[in-house]
Formats: sequence, structure tokens, C-alpha cells
Amino acid sequence: MKNSNVLAKSIRDIPDFPKKGIVFKDITTLLQNAKTYKRAIDSIYNQYKGKRIDNVVCVEARGFIFGAVLAYKLNAGLVLIRKKGKLPYKTHSITYALEYGKDTLEIHQDALQKNARVLIVDDVLATGGTIAAVSRLLKKLNAKISGIAFLIELTFLDGREKLKGYPVSAVIKY
Amino acid sequence: MKNSNVLAKSIRDIPDFPKKGIVFKDITTLLQNAKTYKRAIDSIYNQYKGKRIDNVVCVEARGFIFGAVLAYKLNAGLVLIRKKGKLPYKTHSITYALEYGKDTLEIHQDALQKNARVLIVDDVLATGGTIAAVSRLLKKLNAKISGIAFLIELTFLDGREKLKGYPVSAVIKY
Repeated sequence: MKNSNVLAKSIRDIPDFPKKGIVFKDITTLLQNAKTYKRAIDSIYNQYKGKRIDNVVCVEARGFIFGAVLAYKLNAGLVLIRKKGKLPYKTHSITYALEYGKDTLEIHQDALQKNARVLIVDDVLATGGTIAAVSRLLKKLNAKISGIAFLIELTFLDGREKLKGYPVSAVIKY
Repeated sequence: MKNSNVLAKSIRDIPDFPKKGIVFKDITTLLQNAKTYKRAIDSIYNQYKGKRIDNVVCVEARGFIFGAVLAYKLNAGLVLIRKKGKLPYKTHSITYALEYGKDTLEIHQDALQKNARVLIVDDVLATGGTIAAVSRLLKKLNAKISGIAFLIELTFLDGREKLKGYPVSAVIKY
């Protein structure tokens, strides 16, 4: 069976989470099975194997999972983007609009060397708002975004529109 | 130079974070450097290589980093413990005391097979309160705790006392 089909079958749908009308894609069932977990990581890795990536950048909390393994496998450093107040050193921050309200993300000012080639990794591409904010944050550090990798893409939300100009990949598409 | 010395040198001290009088160990400087990041992961991995571990269990958010890579390298499934309300399916939960106030952690009821051999992985052993709560949570799922692995141990806080009876390891000790 195709990788993407095996993996899609291992993800659980949770209706009305986190609120009524939304069907949440629960990846914990994929993660807790050693075989599907390995297969998911390898599917992302195979798309970037051999490319020169200095740093993998990921956003808390679920993004840390895929970012951490990809950084290790690509022999890259790992850079964390966190919610406001979580990073202890001097930060750059960005505030962006959510469906209701707004959110602020931060990165350490010394997280990257100048002109670092970075790969952004996250679990789900939905509206693209978070990763579009991340890309703007990375510009403040003069990073070169070599790619943006997701495990899952919810294509009906058109998230790629917000990430135009960047190479975007996803293993499973709904 | 010894692994633990190289790694300790790559960690940054942040005085008075998150509050006055506390010196925070900032591991982002270790993570963002490809060499020290790889060395840190391998130092933890080498202690469990070849052991039969069915699942690696980790706590959000920084715990996800080390848990994710260790699970991958040990060919184990990855199980997430999260703060209240973050996991979408049926959960077991545990509330435990912090220095000021309390916190609640949750795990999915179907996260582990019965008698699963698990390795708990986290970044820092401080007072041990969080991981002691995790061990009680894992008992509700009849897991067998084969080990508890930390990158850093703050020995002056006596966290091992709270984890008595379990095999505990740490790469860097302060």
C-alpha cells in the first residue's frame, strides 16, 4: 500500500474538537505505533535527504516532534519558535491574526547564523497563518528558507496560498 | 573533551528566569548547533541502545524534542503527555503540586498496549515532581517503566528521591 494511504489510515478523526463543526486529525495514533511513526518520519526525510540544511525550524508543541527528528537526521541544528514568554533570551517576535483573536510567536535573536539555509517542519498545514508568520520572523534573522515540510495538508483550506514562493511539501493530503 | 563537558559548555545560563533568583539552563544554544545537538541525542541513546523499548513517553513541550528522536532511534512508538485539554480523545489525568499551585497532565487511555515497556525521556530533572506524576499516570495504563532518561540533572534539588525504584540516567549533572 502507498505510504500516504497507510499513514492516513493510522490517523484518527475526532469530530467537534477543539470546537463544534471541526474534525480534528489526531496523529497520536500514528505516533504511538513504532511502524507508522518511522514511516512518517522517513517519508518527510526522503524529500530532503542530501540537501544542505543548516537548521530545522519548528513551532511548539507538536512541531517539535517532527522538527527534532528531521534536524537529527539531516545533521542540522534545531531552532525553536515558541509562544510569548517561553524563550529566556533576547527575542524577535511576531503577532499574527487567528480565526478568533491573535497569537504571538518568538525566536531567539541569535538562533541562526546569517544566511542560514533552513527547513521549516510542522505537523499540519491548515490555513497557513502560523507558518506564514514564521517565515516573516525568519526574515528578521536573514535566513534562507530552503523548504517547508508538513506531514498533513488540509488542501481545502488553501494554506499554500499564504506560503507562495516557497517550496512546500506534504506527505498526506486531505 | 568529555561529552558531558562539551555539552555543558554549550548550554547558556540565564539569571533570574523565569523569576528572580533562579538560574535557567537554556538548552537552545545546544540544540541550534548541529554538532552539540547530535552529541546530546547520541549520549542519551547510547545508554538504551539494544534494550527492548516499546514506547518512549515524553511531556510537552521541550520533552517532545528528546522523546521524538529517541523513539525514532529505538524503533519505538512515541506517546505524548500533555497539559489539560490538549489531547483530543479519552484521557487519564493526574493533578500534582508545583512549588506554587498545581498542574494537570493527561495521557490518552489507549496510548499504550498492556505491559508495554516504556522509556520516559525529558530535558531536565529538577525536583522530579513532573516525572513522578508521569510515572503514576503510566501505572494506570499498566506500563512497565524500563528507564527514565534526562539530558540534565540539577542534583542539588534531589529529584532522584521522588523517582526511587526506577533506573534514572542523566548526561549532564550540575
